[in-house]
Amino acid sequence: MTPDFATARDVPFYAVIFTSKRTSQGADYTKMAEYMLVLARQQDGYLGIESARNEDGFGISVSYWTTLDAIAQWKKNAEHQIAQDYGKTNWYEHYEVKIARVEKTYGKL
Amino acid sequence: MTPDFATARDVPFYAVIFTSKRTSQGADYTKMAEYMLVLARQQDGYLGIESARNEDGFGISVSYWTTLDAIAQWKKNAEHQIAQDYGKTNWYEHYEVKIARVEKTYGKL
Repeated sequence: MTPDFATARDVPFYAVIFTSKRTSQGADYTKMAEYMLVLARQQDGYLGIESARNEDGFGISVSYWTTLDAIAQWKKNAEHQIAQDYGKTNWYEHYEVKIARVEKTYGKL
Repeated sequence: MTPDFATARDVPFYAVIFTSKRTSQGADYTKMAEYMLVLARQQDGYLGIESARNEDGFGISVSYWTTLDAIAQWKKNAEHQIAQDYGKTNWYEHYEVKIARVEKTYGKL
């Protein structure tokens, strides 16, 4: 098993499914993405994250949380920090966020 | 907006989050993956799919469905077809499946 996987077995828990298309601009993107991860790890209720991105810039990140409240706290924290530190940089052509309650998990372990 | 996104706005709906690490073997993988997509599109309750894979072989696919029953039917159908057509080919080092109820969506539209 690889560290890419965010194995979290006790349902229910919550997932934030973030799909995005990167713009070609945005040199600070990696720094911002790492920073978001640091913030997530510090947040109560964080269970893990899984991320993949195609060469054309389309990517999916799914972060996992114990409660909706933990997600709301992280969002508030992250938005505040991004606004403060990175201004109006436009990293995404388009993005979508879906918040979901994970009800069942299985896999090849 | 790009066709990579599976925009589905009326909550609740359901997501199958499939994370996987490809093996280096498996020449028929693309054929099988395309076939799974064809099967999904034919299935009642299918809303769309989003997929991304890193160069190292770690990938995430999230398919969206109207109901848990639609997911169960697709799974049954897909497993039967894969078993029949592709035998015991081992495409994945590891995979995990999470079934989740999407309760909220937002994005940059």
